[in-house]
Amino acid sequence: MPLLPSYADVAAASERLAGQAVVTPLLESPAVDRLLGGRLLVKAECLQRTGSFKFRGAYNRLAQLTASERAAGVVAFSSGNHAQGVAAAARLFDIPATIVMPADAPAIKIANTRDDGAEVVLYDRHRDSREAIARRLAKERGAVLVPSYDDFHIICGQGSVGQEMMRQAHEQGARFDEILIPCSGGGLLAGCSLAIRALSPSTAVYAAEPAQFNDHERSLARGERVRNDPAARSFCDALQAPEPGELTFQVNRRTVSGGVCASDVEVARAMAFAFRHFKLVLEPGGAVALACVLAGRRPIKGRTIGVVCSGGNVENEVFAAALGGAAPEPAA
Amino acid sequence: MPLLPSYADVAAASERLAGQAVVTPLLESPAVDRLLGGRLLVKAECLQRTGSFKFRGAYNRLAQLTASERAAGVVAFSSGNHAQGVAAAARLFDIPATIVMPADAPAIKIANTRDDGAEVVLYDRHRDSREAIARRLAKERGAVLVPSYDDFHIICGQGSVGQEMMRQAHEQGARFDEILIPCSGGGLLAGCSLAIRALSPSTAVYAAEPAQFNDHERSLARGERVRNDPAARSFCDALQAPEPGELTFQVNRRTVSGGVCASDVEVARAMAFAFRHFKLVLEPGGAVALACVLAGRRPIKGRTIGVVCSGGNVENEVFAAALGGAAPEPAA
Repeated sequence: MPLLPSYADVAAASERLAGQAVVTPLLESPAVDRLLGGRLLVKAECLQRTGSFKFRGAYNRLAQLTASERAAGVVAFSSGNHAQGVAAAARLFDIPATIVMPADAPAIKIANTRDDGAEVVLYDRHRDSREAIARRLAKERGAVLVPSYDDFHIICGQGSVGQEMMRQAHEQGARFDEILIPCSGGGLLAGCSLAIRALSPSTAVYAAEPAQFNDHERSLARGERVRNDPAARSFCDALQAPEPGELTFQVNRRTVSGGVCASDVEVARAMAFAFRHFKLVLEPGGAVALACVLAGRRPIKGRTIGVVCSGGNVENEVFAAALGGAAPEPAA
Repeated sequence: MPLLPSYADVAAASERLAGQAVVTPLLESPAVDRLLGGRLLVKAECLQRTGSFKFRGAYNRLAQLTASERAAGVVAFSSGNHAQGVAAAARLFDIPATIVMPADAPAIKIANTRDDGAEVVLYDRHRDSREAIARRLAKERGAVLVPSYDDFHIICGQGSVGQEMMRQAHEQGARFDEILIPCSGGGLLAGCSLAIRALSPSTAVYAAEPAQFNDHERSLARGERVRNDPAARSFCDALQAPEPGELTFQVNRRTVSGGVCASDVEVARAMAFAFRHFKLVLEPGGAVALACVLAGRRPIKGRTIGVVCSGGNVENEVFAAALGGAAPEPAA
């Protein structure tokens, strides 16, 4: 059984990230609080370097590499945000990075990954195996494969979001009754829940997922990992892992109270809500926890709820359509 | 001659605002820095309470009122952001607020002002005098009129933005060569320039204006206040004061190096740029300083420039049109 990370490991990652990651604000709107009848605190992680939390885990993972590993470079596969996180962290450490991305990933994510100096290798999502391509490239080049969630150091880096939220809430005079965290493979959820449960045992943590990809909700309820329907489609391009990660689920089954989910329409409405009330640009996957609260999936009246708004890498047309109230188009 | 504020007055306002105003982040994007060949630091003041910096000045002004003045209430006139700032500050102090707003102000600004509990009195911008209406209401009610920029305490409150930027830049290892600040009546510019020049005499401050409303650029060049063409129109609904304020210009002629301006098209492009690279929602007026840098109005290669992104209260359709590259429509 692999070594599970603890809160101490998350705290060490947070120190490593100091001065490298943006301390993203924990925002609150009195007008929104009046509307909801409770306190809603929004962790604006879309303002992170590369536009999502993924930079944190990637940086923490790459910080572990030896000099010879750094020279040989890293390989990752990702539909977008992990790609950008690895590319930006690799640039800081001066490590060559190769990223395997689906040819139909959002163009902004592919362009940003290239802008950060990474070599991008595109593949056909319906025909090729990204894992196989990445493993072959890593082997050919002697490079280290950087997984997007199922990794000790990735989990700890992402957990710095949760640790930061707890400190900020304390400074702002808030105590969370619960925190909702967007969830795909479960890395952000695992790291954050370790920090949150250690720092505030009375705060419950929930996974927030797209309705078609609610594998954590079902897995947590059953106590074992279950898969999503391979035919599932969602507007949330960043939240389409087939099932919970192995390592992440070992953590999350202990730390997370359950899962909630939102429909694509609810996610699009949450994007428009964040635009209006918080002046934040959220991508679909980055808005799913907010969407769950706005849709009433967790009670907020008289309570204090935190949501992680985890990313903002979204195409102009997709965002404009969400503002216009158009029905969201699934990403796949 | 009226008493001019000093940096000490700005510092006192900053202390008063601690815990009330959001400490908005000073953001930097390595990818943008590479693109521009210099460092660009973005003060994300759109994340402030009420979606613009105006809350700071309004709170600082209302904090000066006596108990009997508070009981009688306040009156303000504003096309939008000052309205929301006064309404939110008045609610915190439990002061009745009446705001005189043009009937064709952005609907989001009128709705938000009402949501904050203020009474909104609409007027026809082409027929009525908002000053006359506000003065009559103030007299009838024995209420205090809260000006939107030409006021000692308003200037000092807005100046807390500049003081905060200087501290954050220091923490982030940056030294500003210059800072560009959106400008209409000149209150934000006056307060910020007092703080910036006191804390860093080698940092130059520039006014950033819409091309059709470049009264500060021309006034600073001539050393006296000049007016805008009454027929001028701009996409930037928040930046349409007819001329520099009297008190603000007394400050700005001493502290500000000059003015630069951007066209409506350049402003719309800056909104799309902030969306993509900083995940921020900016209204047209909030994007004008960024627009001036992106349009090359001030040299950034090898230098460090700060821009205040002062507000984000924008209609969905206006924002979506800016993302789509449509030609901007003047607000008036």
